[in-house]
Amino acid sequence: MTADLEPFFNPKTVAVVGASARKASVGGVIFRNFLKPAFKGTVYPVNPRTTDVLGITSYERVSSVPDPIDLTVIAVPAGIVPKIMLDCEEKGVKAVIIISGGFKEIGSEGAYLEQQIVEITQRSGIRVIGPNCIGIYDTNTGVDTTFLPASRMGRPGKGYISFISQSGAFAAAVLDMNAQSGLGVSRVVSFGNKADVNEIDLIDYLGKDPETRVIVEYLEGLSPSTGGQYLQTAKMVTQEKPIIVVKAGRSARGSVAAVSHTGALAGDARLYDFAFHQAGIINALDFEDGFEMAKTLASQPPAKGNRILIVTDAGGAGVMTVDACDALGLRVPEPPEKEKQILRSAFPGYCSVNNPIDLTGDTDAERYQIAFDTLLGTPHYDAAIAIVMMQVPLLDLDIVERLLSIVRKYDKPLVACTAGGRFTMSGARLLEEAGIPTLPTPARAAKAIWSLVKYGEIKQARREEESAS
Amino acid sequence: MTADLEPFFNPKTVAVVGASARKASVGGVIFRNFLKPAFKGTVYPVNPRTTDVLGITSYERVSSVPDPIDLTVIAVPAGIVPKIMLDCEEKGVKAVIIISGGFKEIGSEGAYLEQQIVEITQRSGIRVIGPNCIGIYDTNTGVDTTFLPASRMGRPGKGYISFISQSGAFAAAVLDMNAQSGLGVSRVVSFGNKADVNEIDLIDYLGKDPETRVIVEYLEGLSPSTGGQYLQTAKMVTQEKPIIVVKAGRSARGSVAAVSHTGALAGDARLYDFAFHQAGIINALDFEDGFEMAKTLASQPPAKGNRILIVTDAGGAGVMTVDACDALGLRVPEPPEKEKQILRSAFPGYCSVNNPIDLTGDTDAERYQIAFDTLLGTPHYDAAIAIVMMQVPLLDLDIVERLLSIVRKYDKPLVACTAGGRFTMSGARLLEEAGIPTLPTPARAAKAIWSLVKYGEIKQARREEESAS
Repeated sequence: MTADLEPFFNPKTVAVVGASARKASVGGVIFRNFLKPAFKGTVYPVNPRTTDVLGITSYERVSSVPDPIDLTVIAVPAGIVPKIMLDCEEKGVKAVIIISGGFKEIGSEGAYLEQQIVEITQRSGIRVIGPNCIGIYDTNTGVDTTFLPASRMGRPGKGYISFISQSGAFAAAVLDMNAQSGLGVSRVVSFGNKADVNEIDLIDYLGKDPETRVIVEYLEGLSPSTGGQYLQTAKMVTQEKPIIVVKAGRSARGSVAAVSHTGALAGDARLYDFAFHQAGIINALDFEDGFEMAKTLASQPPAKGNRILIVTDAGGAGVMTVDACDALGLRVPEPPEKEKQILRSAFPGYCSVNNPIDLTGDTDAERYQIAFDTLLGTPHYDAAIAIVMMQVPLLDLDIVERLLSIVRKYDKPLVACTAGGRFTMSGARLLEEAGIPTLPTPARAAKAIWSLVKYGEIKQARREEESAS
Repeated sequence: MTADLEPFFNPKTVAVVGASARKASVGGVIFRNFLKPAFKGTVYPVNPRTTDVLGITSYERVSSVPDPIDLTVIAVPAGIVPKIMLDCEEKGVKAVIIISGGFKEIGSEGAYLEQQIVEITQRSGIRVIGPNCIGIYDTNTGVDTTFLPASRMGRPGKGYISFISQSGAFAAAVLDMNAQSGLGVSRVVSFGNKADVNEIDLIDYLGKDPETRVIVEYLEGLSPSTGGQYLQTAKMVTQEKPIIVVKAGRSARGSVAAVSHTGALAGDARLYDFAFHQAGIINALDFEDGFEMAKTLASQPPAKGNRILIVTDAGGAGVMTVDACDALGLRVPEPPEKEKQILRSAFPGYCSVNNPIDLTGDTDAERYQIAFDTLLGTPHYDAAIAIVMMQVPLLDLDIVERLLSIVRKYDKPLVACTAGGRFTMSGARLLEEAGIPTLPTPARAAKAIWSLVKYGEIKQARREEESAS
């Protein structure tokens, strides 16, 4: 079943139905996407009204293309989509993405059209993503069926986080946000009305995908008929890699709104919490939270316990980080007397050595090095937060190299927290490029570390289950 | 007492002790700050080692300056500060900011020096901010005693939020962050060791300050001797304008860390919650939360109730906003049947009219206008959230003008929620410049609206107290 999805993400040949030279048309934008150097396969325009598009021979229908077609992308009005699907069946196309809207989301007339597509799919074995979606954005293969121009929606670079969403609006917003913040993605899929391919197929595929380290999903609800299978699949996947779900419709009033949005049964939040816990799914509060946990899990190892070391150059930020850790059930234990003694002799008397280790505002990068070398190698800590307020005068960007060497030396997860303007942002970008997740507030840094502790617990629980059975 | 603080913020004459031509020296940076055109008064360098600084006559001591001095800024080693204070006493200086560290924060030797300063202050009536602080950054008068170079710490423009903090590191980070995000400030004060001026003096002064609409404060704890007076003063101020406190040391472990940071009694979180509630103080989770509430309260009127209208072009974001409102105790009532009917006849059938009003991804600015015109003028709603995902193709930047006209027309608070890349960010900046607070996630938009509801309740409770007494 998973192998069936390969032509969506890695097609050798693509037909774009509705391709045109017009930049403002959906088919025009999608066709152009496949002409970019990132896509290594061959693309064929299909448009009965013309014989060539941008100098490339155009075909009247998919079945007139002389070569076999792995993937067809359809961007024409809903009414003629069933006819094109029949043509794809005749041609032996393996996979179809239907971008077009105007199906069951608009009422009974559209639902009738969609039913025809479902029947062709089931009969022919053609796999279908959509209709009513923006389809796929894949940084590994250059497949890009998103139809918003670059001026409106940025395209992020290569990364290891994959994102799936029924909603196209969210997929577009997530791509745009990540392009802006510099966070790379692997494969992004908006699957719309789910005439065929659904979230179960996708987490199964991405679970086995070597280019995906973390899966993020936007979910309004599970259906009674497929919810069990979804959770079972998720449980398999979370053995290998984390799944983070942004679940909307948690409140009673929100779940009513979800019904009118996608018809999803958002249902009782406690039931979802329980089911997600069983399946090893990590629940995110929102996209910001979800992608901050995802970038952390994609770049740092899971923690083996919940004892957090905090090293800071701003005492207040240290205190706030302790509060945030405490609220998440993380522990911030004091160092043993022996290590405190080492730190006391290395630092000025006004530094605090009690965890948070407060290096104070006249610190340089060297003090950070000493604090981590003294404590992170001991068995007393499982993970660390480095608070690096870069306004302090003696701290320079060599702090990035120092933190990186610490991560390499102790193989324990570390995240950084820093907040400020231009200088700080350039430091933050360097830290992130070096693989150190960097968060702008104590609460968000604590949440990032929590995700590593949580995923460590999920893996551990799974190991215990296995050895018990 | 408040009038006493005027020379700190609006001095006609300033002496900088430690002024020099060296850009790397603290006194050098501060002296240069006062030469900028934003400062309209006269600045005198005081430095016994030279006769002029950057071409301006320098004086051996403050008392040798021929004119009266309103404010002296001291940036020389701690050991000679008491001698300079005596000289200021002789000169009749009204206010002194002591930037220098090396006082009670470093132990008993420093505490002895600080005690000498306290004695001079009490005897002479000279008001002192510091020692061990970065002092004042005032966008109204150009007073700027912050000594970090612009490359390290940005300076924000004029706004109506004032910020006070014992911690200098936080004041610097807050300035730098706001410079980056474009959020203006009014007066920012880091008051360090509080040898004289403390948070009570400052909230009293800023409470009466016409250039301050919202006060944000970073606080680790109140002392048993002055806590009561602080709360009493806060209660007076919150009648006129909101006070938002970022309180660190809420957890048991965090309150221990706070003791070693500033010696503050962070104490029991529930006690603080109760005391803040009585005083009408709004508690923020962290700086991000605090300044997002502050910018909202500085630009929108308080809400007269908790019934929130949500209008969105992304159904999922609508659902998540309902969840977030629900978690904060806000209501999201359905529109009456009559208004629903109006919306149904104006919108395509696939739009939802149940609140969230889901205009869907093919909306233009016109649909927003219709939704707000139909509902926000009715007595059924107290405030609104406009979710504007700007990736959708038919929405252009005229949405800014539309939302602005709605705010003007109905005099009910409105915040926007938008998330994305370059195009979205330019839209968000335009919205903010037009006075519409714009937040990047549903949860943060809901929190912003909550702050307006909360401050409305605080004002209402105060009115009821008054009419009862």
